[in-house]
Amino acid sequence: MVATEYDRDISVNSVAEGTYDADLSAGWIVGGGINGGYLLATIANAVRASVPGKPDPISISAYYLSASLPGPATVTTTVKRDGGSIATVAAELSQGDDVRITALATYGDLSTLPDTVERSSDVPDFPPLEQCVPNTMAPEEMRAMVPMMERFEMLFHPDHIGWAVGKPSGEGVISAWFRLKEGREPDPISLLTVVDLLPPVTFDLGRPGWAPTLELTAHVRAVPAPGWLRVRHATRNVLGGMFEEDCEVWDSTGRLVAQSRQLARLPR
Amino acid sequence: MVATEYDRDISVNSVAEGTYDADLSAGWIVGGGINGGYLLATIANAVRASVPGKPDPISISAYYLSASLPGPATVTTTVKRDGGSIATVAAELSQGDDVRITALATYGDLSTLPDTVERSSDVPDFPPLEQCVPNTMAPEEMRAMVPMMERFEMLFHPDHIGWAVGKPSGEGVISAWFRLKEGREPDPISLLTVVDLLPPVTFDLGRPGWAPTLELTAHVRAVPAPGWLRVRHATRNVLGGMFEEDCEVWDSTGRLVAQSRQLARLPR
Repeated sequence: MVATEYDRDISVNSVAEGTYDADLSAGWIVGGGINGGYLLATIANAVRASVPGKPDPISISAYYLSASLPGPATVTTTVKRDGGSIATVAAELSQGDDVRITALATYGDLSTLPDTVERSSDVPDFPPLEQCVPNTMAPEEMRAMVPMMERFEMLFHPDHIGWAVGKPSGEGVISAWFRLKEGREPDPISLLTVVDLLPPVTFDLGRPGWAPTLELTAHVRAVPAPGWLRVRHATRNVLGGMFEEDCEVWDSTGRLVAQSRQLARLPR
Repeated sequence: MVATEYDRDISVNSVAEGTYDADLSAGWIVGGGINGGYLLATIANAVRASVPGKPDPISISAYYLSASLPGPATVTTTVKRDGGSIATVAAELSQGDDVRITALATYGDLSTLPDTVERSSDVPDFPPLEQCVPNTMAPEEMRAMVPMMERFEMLFHPDHIGWAVGKPSGEGVISAWFRLKEGREPDPISLLTVVDLLPPVTFDLGRPGWAPTLELTAHVRAVPAPGWLRVRHATRNVLGGMFEEDCEVWDSTGRLVAQSRQLARLPR
């Protein structure tokens, strides 16, 4: 398998037990910072290396302490418990003396879980790809501010793209078809990027601008099938200067493969 | 203010910087373990003590590693960042050499947040208290297995109590009115207990039995008003031997005050 740009961007090098070097790519800049989902996958890659035989994030909770910058970073991992079929690990991403993200994660092997689906949230209605709005239609100045947009294909559901032309739906929902470039198929690690890639759901409430994540927890529920993903996020509670953003991801077979919730600050 | 039994049960004593002794009460036993929400509030009490001036949990994520037992326990706290209006802390609850729970939390002062509610999830329909089913109607043998039931009043919504008589609704929803005994009013710490107190939502799917929590994240969105709380939890995705349980809590004014999601294993 040839490593894609995405694989190179999230790669880590073991330099000592529980210590991994990373090089945060400027390709994932969004506005003033680096995308939180890209950072999460980078951390997740280091955690994977620290618990052999347990390749997949089942749950990961990240607390974002300060904004990361492109360039060198270090991920440290501490195994809290490794027994039976799962392991729990604490991980931190730092740059110099500054901790950027502190996280906890439970890993296992998703391929060994029973394949039964007893109940699954329905895939919401997504129009066919050709009826959706590609992010490449964004104005040149936005694409310059958000270079990560060049890393993937994202085709927005037309019902919730009004914010792009100053007419947000007010419903607090954004959804899109998604795939990484270079034919890089989804896997449990890349899903951690996907759950934090859509524009903040507050765009659909007429509140453009940066919405810093305080905390994000993602659950990877199954290994995704190859092909396009469908991603939807929504908010129902906007109060006290904060909102929750609930994201769900379905694979090409219509199976729910990841869920996340983040608590974020409202744009000023 | 006279300390209630609940306050005594969750109390911690500082024995060194970042180290707190606790005494886990047998009063919170449920089946073979101690209730996870009670443990979470005990940890939260230690975190509160470690960040003066930031009394309230805004977000807390707990990974449950092994089952706690009644008796002595130690909570250690490590401040990861304390700046501006919020602080983030790592905390662990241990008994002897066994880590029971490892957690991350962000604290602040909820009373200083803007009081605006721009959007809030609706309080679902709850019949009046007198039309609901008190947990004290449970058979004597169940009450003996779940002594924590004596610590609070819980009145179940009659639409989702069929599991108690072998007729689960199959919808995957349980809701109830709730208050602690001795007139102990809700506060941000006690909400962390409340989000994990209802019977596992799998009871309503015809799956009684213990559903061990892997991970639980709670967001406290506002300081609750005094009085009865309304608590509802639900699941939409039961697959691969696991399910998510989403809980919401509204205070007596109808305001959403807490949200949580946990990932748990299905009962065998």
